[in-house]
Amino acid sequence: MNLALLGCGVVGTEIVRLLRTSADDLAARVGEPLRLVGIAVRRPERVRDAEVDPALLTSDAAALVARDDVDLVIEVVGGIEPARQWLLAALNAGKPVVTANKALLASYGATLHDAAAAAGTDLYYEAAVAGAIPLIRPLRESLAGDRVRRVLGIVNGTTNYVLTRMDETGASFAEALAEAGALGYAEADPSADIDGYDAAAKAAIMAQLAFHTRVTIDDVYREGIGDVTAADIASARELGCVVKALAVAERSTQSEGISVRVHPAMIPRSHPLAGVREAFNAVFVEAEAAGQLMFYGQGAGGAPTASAVLGDVVAVARNRIAGRQGPGESSYAALPVLPMGRTVTRYHVNLDVTDKTGVLAAVAGAFARHDVSIRSVRQEGRGDDASLVLVTHAAPDEALSATVEELRGLAEVRAVSGVLRVEGGES
Amino acid sequence: MNLALLGCGVVGTEIVRLLRTSADDLAARVGEPLRLVGIAVRRPERVRDAEVDPALLTSDAAALVARDDVDLVIEVVGGIEPARQWLLAALNAGKPVVTANKALLASYGATLHDAAAAAGTDLYYEAAVAGAIPLIRPLRESLAGDRVRRVLGIVNGTTNYVLTRMDETGASFAEALAEAGALGYAEADPSADIDGYDAAAKAAIMAQLAFHTRVTIDDVYREGIGDVTAADIASARELGCVVKALAVAERSTQSEGISVRVHPAMIPRSHPLAGVREAFNAVFVEAEAAGQLMFYGQGAGGAPTASAVLGDVVAVARNRIAGRQGPGESSYAALPVLPMGRTVTRYHVNLDVTDKTGVLAAVAGAFARHDVSIRSVRQEGRGDDASLVLVTHAAPDEALSATVEELRGLAEVRAVSGVLRVEGGES
Repeated sequence: MNLALLGCGVVGTEIVRLLRTSADDLAARVGEPLRLVGIAVRRPERVRDAEVDPALLTSDAAALVARDDVDLVIEVVGGIEPARQWLLAALNAGKPVVTANKALLASYGATLHDAAAAAGTDLYYEAAVAGAIPLIRPLRESLAGDRVRRVLGIVNGTTNYVLTRMDETGASFAEALAEAGALGYAEADPSADIDGYDAAAKAAIMAQLAFHTRVTIDDVYREGIGDVTAADIASARELGCVVKALAVAERSTQSEGISVRVHPAMIPRSHPLAGVREAFNAVFVEAEAAGQLMFYGQGAGGAPTASAVLGDVVAVARNRIAGRQGPGESSYAALPVLPMGRTVTRYHVNLDVTDKTGVLAAVAGAFARHDVSIRSVRQEGRGDDASLVLVTHAAPDEALSATVEELRGLAEVRAVSGVLRVEGGES
Repeated sequence: MNLALLGCGVVGTEIVRLLRTSADDLAARVGEPLRLVGIAVRRPERVRDAEVDPALLTSDAAALVARDDVDLVIEVVGGIEPARQWLLAALNAGKPVVTANKALLASYGATLHDAAAAAGTDLYYEAAVAGAIPLIRPLRESLAGDRVRRVLGIVNGTTNYVLTRMDETGASFAEALAEAGALGYAEADPSADIDGYDAAAKAAIMAQLAFHTRVTIDDVYREGIGDVTAADIASARELGCVVKALAVAERSTQSEGISVRVHPAMIPRSHPLAGVREAFNAVFVEAEAAGQLMFYGQGAGGAPTASAVLGDVVAVARNRIAGRQGPGESSYAALPVLPMGRTVTRYHVNLDVTDKTGVLAAVAGAFARHDVSIRSVRQEGRGDDASLVLVTHAAPDEALSATVEELRGLAEVRAVSGVLRVEGGES
C-alpha cells in the first residue's frame, strides 16, 4: 500500500514519524506494509526535519497524486485551493483520500463526496474536527440508529484557552489573547479562531453528520468572542455559569429544520462542557435514545491530528485491500438550515438603569411586546450604579435581538452592558 | 433486511420501539427497510408490552436463528449459555450478529470472532461496554493508527453511584448501596456489580481492542468495592483525591505485556474521570500520539443500550447489502497478560501507630526492605490517635502488598486501617 502525503508541516512531519516508528503495528493492522512514496510541499528545499527523507520530496503535488504507484492520498495542506483540485483528481482516479482539511470539507464537502461515490472510493476526515477526538466515526456510525437532537462543541482550542484564562484569572480579553499567543495557542493573525471561522467550518461538518443534511460554512451563523468582556465573565460566574465559545448544531423543535451556529454562550458550571479547560476540545451530543454523550481530548497539535489521520489511513487501507468502501456521505434528510432569527435561544441581558421607580415595568414591557418571557430578573446596586440582570426563557433569536434593540432606546436604560446567549440547560 | 431479536426485556423492548419509531430514518440510512421478523423469549406469554407484536414471539430461539428469511441476529439475552450456541449457529450460517452480551464476549470472544471470520460475516458489540458511549469503534478504528498506553474506565454505574454518594454525602457503603437499590441502580443481588465481575468482563473487552490481544475475563485481576470505608473516602478527600471503581488496561513500561484489572483506586480530583458522577460511565484513554481522550455518557439503561445496538445494526446491515464485512478481530500483538504481582501500581496506606519515637523509622524500614519508595508521608493526631498516611511511588504490586503484610506485623503499627491503589497521575 503506497501512500502520498500532501503537506509536511507540523502534522505532516508527525505522520512521517509515526509511519516509521509504528510501521510494524500498522502493517499488522492493515495486513500489508504502508509505504510512503512521495511528499509534496511548496518548497522542498525548506524541509529540514531529519525525519523526512529528502528523496521523497517534490513540489509537484498534482504529479504525485497522478503517479501510478500511489494507492492512497493523505492531505494536510489545508485551505481550499489547490487542495480541492488535488483531492478531486485523486478521487476521480479511484484513489481513496484521507484529509484533515476542515475548510475544504465545509465548503466543498458535497463535491468531494460525490466524486468519491462516483469512483467507488473512500473519503475519510476524522482529523478535520477536534483533532484526535473520535467524533466523525461516532456521529456517522455509532449514532446511526439514533436521532441526534443537538451537538454542542468546544472545537477551537485558542478561544477556549482565552475564555478559560478570563474566567480563572480575571484577565481581560486582550491579556488572555496575548498569553495564548505567547504559548503558541494563537496564530500571529488570530482572526480565524477569534472570529469563529475555524469553529464554523467544524460546525458545518458536525451538522452534516448529525442530521444527514448537506451543510456548508455559508449556512453557519457566526459570532466571535472579541466582544466578551471581563464583566460578562463575572456576570456568568454570579449566575453559576461559565462563558464558552460553542459550535451548536441542533434540530428545531418548532419547525422542520436545523440551526447551525457559532457564538459565545453561558453554560451552567454543572454542565460537563464547563470543565473543559484551556486548549482542550470536547463535543457534547444529545440523542433521543443514547441520552447525553461527551467526547473529550486534544483538539489540535501535530501528534493528536496525526493520530486521527493514521486511524483513517488504516481503515481506508483495509477497505482498499478488501475491495470495499466504508460508509459514504449520508444526506438523505436534506433538512433546511434555519436562519438565525428563527433559531430558538435564550438570552442573558445586563442593563445599566436609572434609579427611578417604574424601571422594571418599562423593561418588562419591552420584553412583553416581543413575546419574550423572562425567566429571572435581579436588581444589583443602587443609584447610578443600579443594574438589572435578566435571563429569558427560550424565544426566537429575532424576537430576542429586537427586544435588546428596543431596550437600548428606553429612557430608563442607560446602557445595555452585556448580552450573551445561554446554552446547555433544558430548552 | 430481516432481523431476529433474541431477548425482549428492557433493552429488547426499546429496540422494538426504536425500530418502529425510527423506521423511515433507519431505512434511509441502510438503503432498505429493516423488518423485525421474530422475537425469541423464554416465556412468550409473559411479554405484555403493547409495543411488542405477539405474533412475532417465539420461545424457540434456535429455530428463529435458523429461519431462511432471517438476515441478521440481535442478541440481548445476556449470559453464556444458551446465547453462545445461538450466536455460533447464526455466525456459522453466515448471518451477522449484533450483541450486547459482555459476559459472553469476555469468555468466548475468540470463538465467536473465529466463527465470524470463517463465515465471512460481522460480529458487532458496541453495546457490550459502556452502553451508548461509542467506545468499541473508537478503540478498534479511530485509534488504529496510534499506540494505546492505558485505558481507565468507570464502566459500572452501580459502583460509581455508590462511591459518588459516599463521597458527596458521607454515607457508609451499606447506606449508599441501599440508596442505589431504591433508585433501581442496583440489582437485587448486587454482587456482579459490587464485586467487579461486570467491570471485569468490560475490562477484558477493552483490553482486547486496545492492545490487539486476546483477553478473557479469567485474565482480569479483580477486587470489589465492598471494603471501601467512609474513612478511605475521607482520606482520599484530604489528599485531593476521589475513590472510583476503575477498570484498567495498560501496557507495561517494564516488560513486554499488559495488565488488566478492576479495583477501587484514588484518582486526583483534577482528573477528568473524577467529575463522572452517579450512574454515568466514562472511559479515559491515553495514547502515544492522540494524548488524553475521554468518552462520557450513560453506560446502561434500555434506551442508551438500544441506541448502541441499532448503530451496529445499521452498520452491519449496510455491510451485508454491500456484500462486505466490517473490521474483524485484531489480535496480532498477542501480548502476555501479566499477573497482578508484576503490575506496577502505587499505594496509599493509612496506619494507626503507637505514640513512640522511632515509629516512622520502623515503618520506613519495612518499605525500604521491599524496595518501595515513599512519595509522601504525613502524621496525623497524637497519642493513641496517631496515624501515618503514606503514598508510595510506583512499584510492583507484589512488593507493595508484601510491604503491607510486613507493616501488619510491626510492633509500632496498631492497625493497617486503609490500603488503596492510586491511579490517574503520572506513573
